[in-house]
Order: sequence, then C-alpha cells, then structure tokens
Amino acid sequence: MTAATNARRLRPDLEIVAFERGHRVSYSACGIPYHVSGEVEELDALVVRTPREFRDSLRIDVRTEHEVVAIDPDRRQVEVLDVARERSFRIGFEHLVVATGARPIRPDLPGIDGPNIFGVQTLDDAERLVAYADEVRCQRVTVVGGGYIGLEMAEAFVMWGAQVTLVDSAPQVMRTLDADMATRVEAALERLSIDVRTGVDVIGFEPGSVHTSQGRVDADLVVLGMGVEPETTLAAGAGLDLGVRGAVRVDRRQLTSLEGVYAAGDCAESFHVVSRRPVHVALGTVANKHGRVAGINIGGGYATFPGVAGTAITRVCGLEVARTGLNEAEAGRAGFVASSTTIEASTKAGYLPSAEPMVVRLVVEQGTGRVLGGQIVGGAGAAMRIDVVAAAVTTRMTVDDVVGLDLAYAPPFSSVWDPIATAGRVAARRRRDDAR
Amino acid sequence: MTAATNARRLRPDLEIVAFERGHRVSYSACGIPYHVSGEVEELDALVVRTPREFRDSLRIDVRTEHEVVAIDPDRRQVEVLDVARERSFRIGFEHLVVATGARPIRPDLPGIDGPNIFGVQTLDDAERLVAYADEVRCQRVTVVGGGYIGLEMAEAFVMWGAQVTLVDSAPQVMRTLDADMATRVEAALERLSIDVRTGVDVIGFEPGSVHTSQGRVDADLVVLGMGVEPETTLAAGAGLDLGVRGAVRVDRRQLTSLEGVYAAGDCAESFHVVSRRPVHVALGTVANKHGRVAGINIGGGYATFPGVAGTAITRVCGLEVARTGLNEAEAGRAGFVASSTTIEASTKAGYLPSAEPMVVRLVVEQGTGRVLGGQIVGGAGAAMRIDVVAAAVTTRMTVDDVVGLDLAYAPPFSSVWDPIATAGRVAARRRRDDAR
Repeated sequence: MTAATNARRLRPDLEIVAFERGHRVSYSACGIPYHVSGEVEELDALVVRTPREFRDSLRIDVRTEHEVVAIDPDRRQVEVLDVARERSFRIGFEHLVVATGARPIRPDLPGIDGPNIFGVQTLDDAERLVAYADEVRCQRVTVVGGGYIGLEMAEAFVMWGAQVTLVDSAPQVMRTLDADMATRVEAALERLSIDVRTGVDVIGFEPGSVHTSQGRVDADLVVLGMGVEPETTLAAGAGLDLGVRGAVRVDRRQLTSLEGVYAAGDCAESFHVVSRRPVHVALGTVANKHGRVAGINIGGGYATFPGVAGTAITRVCGLEVARTGLNEAEAGRAGFVASSTTIEASTKAGYLPSAEPMVVRLVVEQGTGRVLGGQIVGGAGAAMRIDVVAAAVTTRMTVDDVVGLDLAYAPPFSSVWDPIATAGRVAARRRRDDAR
Repeated sequence: MTAATNARRLRPDLEIVAFERGHRVSYSACGIPYHVSGEVEELDALVVRTPREFRDSLRIDVRTEHEVVAIDPDRRQVEVLDVARERSFRIGFEHLVVATGARPIRPDLPGIDGPNIFGVQTLDDAERLVAYADEVRCQRVTVVGGGYIGLEMAEAFVMWGAQVTLVDSAPQVMRTLDADMATRVEAALERLSIDVRTGVDVIGFEPGSVHTSQGRVDADLVVLGMGVEPETTLAAGAGLDLGVRGAVRVDRRQLTSLEGVYAAGDCAESFHVVSRRPVHVALGTVANKHGRVAGINIGGGYATFPGVAGTAITRVCGLEVARTGLNEAEAGRAGFVASSTTIEASTKAGYLPSAEPMVVRLVVEQGTGRVLGGQIVGGAGAAMRIDVVAAAVTTRMTVDDVVGLDLAYAPPFSSVWDPIATAGRVAARRRRDDAR
C-alpha cells in the first residue's frame, strides 16, 4: 500500500488496483502483541487505513479476499481468485508490485497443524488466535522461538494472565544479540515468571502439550515465533529470480528480473550496508521503505533503496533491547576482524533516583577503528540511542568520530558523556593503548 | 578535572596540581535544579569525585579554596591565593590548563547585589540558594531569563512549593528554538501555573520585589538565568588571545596563544561544525570534551576537538525539548538559504494509549537538501531523537540520507516511520515537488 500511495502522489492518472487475499490491508502487524496483552483493546485500532479510505482519498482500488494466483509475464496479466465468489479473472498491468510478504516458519513436525498452534503474521492470524485463547480460556501458553515476536508474545500472554513457557533450540534467546547480552534479556523474562528453556528442541505437538527434547510441556495454546520465510510462490511461478533465503531478487530501484515488475517488503531481498551482502530482513520499516522506492519509481520519479543496517529494537519485560550493524559473530562471518567494547552506564544522571542501568556494546573493526555494530540492553530510555549507532555504521564512523559527536545531555536523559560516547571513548582508549 | 584525569592516564610520572577557589570540584552543575526540586536530596550527590578520591586513586593534588590570581607566562608560574590561610604563593608549571569556567550574567541594575538574588553556576551557589530559600520560607520566586537553566529552575521551584514568575526580555522563551516551537514550551510552563512574562524587561530589584517594564512582581527570591559569560579575567591578565564573546581563543588541540597553555570548558571558544564559525557554548558536554582533548595532548597523545553541533536538550514541565545544528534565524545569519519542514508525530505507535504528541522540525538548505538543524518538542521519549539529527548535521546528510537511515522501530518507541524519518520524507517530497 505504501508503493500504491507513493505512485498515486506522482501520477494522479494511474489506475491502481491492490489485491489482498485476507480481510485487511495497511496495518501494524507489530502491534499484535499489544492487542493480545490488552493494551490495545480493539484489533482494528492497528489498521492504518481501510480499503474504503484508500478508495475515497487516494482512488486506489483495494480488493480484499482476492488472491492473485498467477502472474503471466508474457501477456502482462495477473490471474486473480475472488475468494468469496469463488471465481477467477485476469487483469492486465503496466507496472506490478509483488508484495506477498512472508509466512511464519512451520517446521514439519508431528501435530504441527493442530488447531491450537498459531503463527502471528497477519491481523487475521491475530483475530483467530485471540478468539481461540478466549474460547478455551487458555491458561498455559508455549512460545516456540525466542526472537522479537516470540518474546513480545510471551510477555503479552503473561499480561493476558497465562503461564508462559518459552522454548528455543538455540543456546540463547535473540540470536541477533551476542550471548552475554541475551543473558540479560533471559533474566528479565524470568523475573516475569516466564519459564525460559534454551537449547531445547521441539519434537512434536499434541492437544494440550508440546513434546520437546527435554520432556513434555503443557500448553493450551502454542505460538510459533521461529521466524519467517519469504512468501514467493507467486514470484517463483512467474520465473522471477530469487536470491538470499529464497527472497525475490531486486535491484536498488526494487525492480525484479522482469521488466516493470517490482518486489517490496518481506518477500524481497535487501542489501546490508555493513556486510555489503544481500540479506532478507522482514521488518515493517524496511518493507515501508521498499514500498516507497517502488512507488516513486512507478510514478516516474527516481528513488533507490539505500540498504539496511540491521537495526532492531524491542521492549520486553521491562527491558529495552536494541541492536544495529553486525554483532561479533556476524562481523566474523562478513570477513571483519573485530573486537567488542562493552560499558555499563545509566539511563539518566546516576544521582537521579529514577536512573536505571544500561549496557552498551560497540563492535569495532581492528585497524580502522570503524564501528561495525552496536547493542544496547537497559531500562527506560536506553534503547533509542541505537539510532545514533545506526547512523554511525551507515556513515562509516570510527570510534573517534562517535566520541566527537555532539550528543544531547541533560540529567533526565543521560550522564554528561552519553553511554554511546562513553563506549566510543573506552574503545578509543583501548586502541591507543594497543598502539603503544 | 577531565583534563587532569586524561593526562594522568597517559603520564603516570606527571605531577598534577589542580586549584579551585570554591569548595568542590568535579560535580554536575546541571543537577542543581533537581536538588532544588527535592528529587536529589543531598547536594553532594551531584559530586562525581571528591578531592580525596582524586588524590588517592589518581594522584592528582586538588587544592580547594585556592584561587589562582595571576599567570606569569615568562617565568611559567601561577600565583595562588590560599583563601583560608590568607597567604599567597607561586608554583611553576610545564603545562597549564585554564578552566576558569563562566559566570552568570548580572546586569548592572539597581539592587542587583541584593541578598535574595542568585546566579546558579556552582554547587556553592546552589548551597547558598537553598539555604536562603529555606531560611526565608520562600513562597514567591522570580526567574529572570527563559533559557535552559531558567526554565529548569522555574519548574524546580514549583516542585519546591513556590509560586513562580518567569520574566524574559525576548518575545519568547528559549531563543535557541524557533518561535512557534517555543510557544509550545510556554504552554507547558503555564500548565504548571508558572506566570510567563515574555517581552518584559527587568529594570531593578528591591527586597521583596522585582521591577519590570510592566510593573512590579513580588519575589522573595530571584534566580538569574540570563545566560553566562566566560570567566577570563585570569586569561586576559596573562595576555592570552580572546575570541568570540570574550572566550579564550584555542586551536583544535585546545592550545591557547601561549605555548604549553591550554584552555578548556566554559571559558574557552568552540567551533560550530555547521556555521563553521567560532562559538561560545557553555555546556558540560563540551567542557568535558575540551578537557579530554587538552588532557590527552598534555599526556603526549594527540587529540583534537571536533567542534559542536549546537545540540541541547531539556525536560521541563512534562515536555521534552531538544535542538541541534542551526535554527532558522541562525541558518540565515550563517549565510544559508534554508527552509523548514515541520511534522506532527507521536512518541509511540499511535494506537498505544500511552502515545504522546511530538513535533519535529528540520531546517534544510535549499539546493543541496542538506540538513542544517533540527528541533523536537514532545512527550516522554521524544527528544533523544535529536542525536540522530546531530549525527546528520555533523556528517552533512541530506534529507534523502535521513530517510534512508535504518532507524529503530517497535510500537513502544515510534511509528513505523520514525518521526525524524517522516520529517525527512516530507522535506524530500517537498523538494521533489519544487523541482517539478
């Protein structure tokens, strides 16, 4: 819908049609945990714009419950199934945007299709999940997978009133963080009475329980938080080139291998500005930027996608968590020789009673001193600082550059050296010491 | 003390002596309002390191109640008055750091030296002020000047239990903000029952009241918040070159015009990375960076001060306020042709009940699209975003670069387009529209 909106702004004359197989478009899937927790009462509060609003204010013809089942590149048509009326039709296109998104990974395990097992990708998913939880008066929830959505859903179900178990096959939650940073997150989950079981494989499901490599866990309801994979059945069927992790390959203008066909969002590849490799990042921020770029180009403008820095943030169980760039393992895999500097700081001037602890890590390239990434875990106000690190990795700052930044300071916000600058200062000092 | 500490780290052999005419060193003067408000109970909580700690852990010989009264550049000596013992002595130096700070501006008005009129610069000032307020059971406070410290002190005295009047000769508070942004701050002050009188000159003081161009204001206690001026009596006496606003002129290594003599902190000049002009910025962040640079250079290392971006932040009367770079007027004075883009956003995803409004302004150079500055006013969590704008102005980003930044998003922190990116996006669109 972002692509459609941007194209419309530049080309009032275009006929724009959007097909969606579900019931809603233009919503915040990231808001689902806050509906489950009860913080957002009405699911439809997560909808940004309704089909009617798209039609009335932007003349974009949104057809929900319409599934595009095939792309015909030769005739430049798509074949559409009108789900409600059970009939198909074809419609031609000049420009096409493939924005089919991603689907939650559902491992091929016994019982995986049980009625109490839910992925959380669309508002339709969320609606079914909440209805089910209400219906069975769910008391025990197991979340499989300790990534962002897994942790957020785990906390949401605690708020909901359930007893929650989190199972992750990895030795830590949040694999995008270095292990010791993730340990702090696990501690926060446990403080909220979430039963965290890392290094545990799920081997099957049956009504009322989850079988794991370390015994059975009771569960009225199971949330799958094992990540997503790009939904590219349609794209592959049309012969579009696929790239990393099976996502649709795109150039910097979001064009696929087929003329006039764009891909945007969770189904499409991105480019990582630090590793300089194609990556698949299924985040709303990235999807919106993809869409904007595709829409501007379709509208006759010129826009390119600048790439991702790997930024992500969450607030979970009273803790703020953020990361950007490369972590230690990623830096190694990308061919960097890097070392980390980790500092303990506080979210405000230490003498204010409301100050909370926070930890900042910078991952720094040897030799150049370039900042390759950063991680933050801490109390209220800690994590938004990651944006400065995101700017630093994007503009190839060294630790000295970071120390030199004129960062804001007042006692309610930080100590006089902002924690990010402090991390830079310690890293810079270590480099000077190493050089001597 | 930052200079001393950094020099010590690099040169264990140096003899380091620090003279301070007051009673304390190494403290957070910015914390004074939080002591007055009662949030920080003990004034000495604002002290970072005591003289004893400097001596014991860093072998830095700190002598309080010792005032340096003259610098003798030829003999490379300073003349020191031991205030308690009322005797003077001379001591030689190899390297000297002039860190005499700044003093509150005290206009030459009738009654200005009254016992109930306080500047707020040192902890000693704060101690006297609080003792006086307690003693007279102060009920009516007038703050003269609506800059950061003025506003913070006004709020602090509301918390203290006083009725507060704020008088400012300018047509707005916070002259570092554009007028319409300042209006929002004035509204927040007024919501806290502070009587805000802008465009009003103070013409004199007498016990119990302040005379202004628009009548008398009752006041048991007066706080001067009219800004500061560099304290350079000593430097000028030694013949050091002075620069903008009378601050000590320094090169990028913080060296003054005299060999081996450094200046750092509120008494010294800085350089503005956007206007490319020398500026006098009396802020703790800048002072600490000056000190670090001087200390590293004295210790035989190499460090340069990268300049200021004009970043400042405060939280006042429930509102967060921040700015960086140049505002509209400053951009004009620096020779830029610029225009502003202002957007309304929210501090979290709009569907979260705790989301609060915020406003972001970007000041953008015509032609290049370079971001010259930014201002933020809004609810909890709004203002720290200024650091991204500070990074943007420092690295000469255009609005398109800002849109391209991979900024963090999760519902508790922002909408999917961070307000900074939204401002960039609107500015970029306007530029495209203008170009057509």
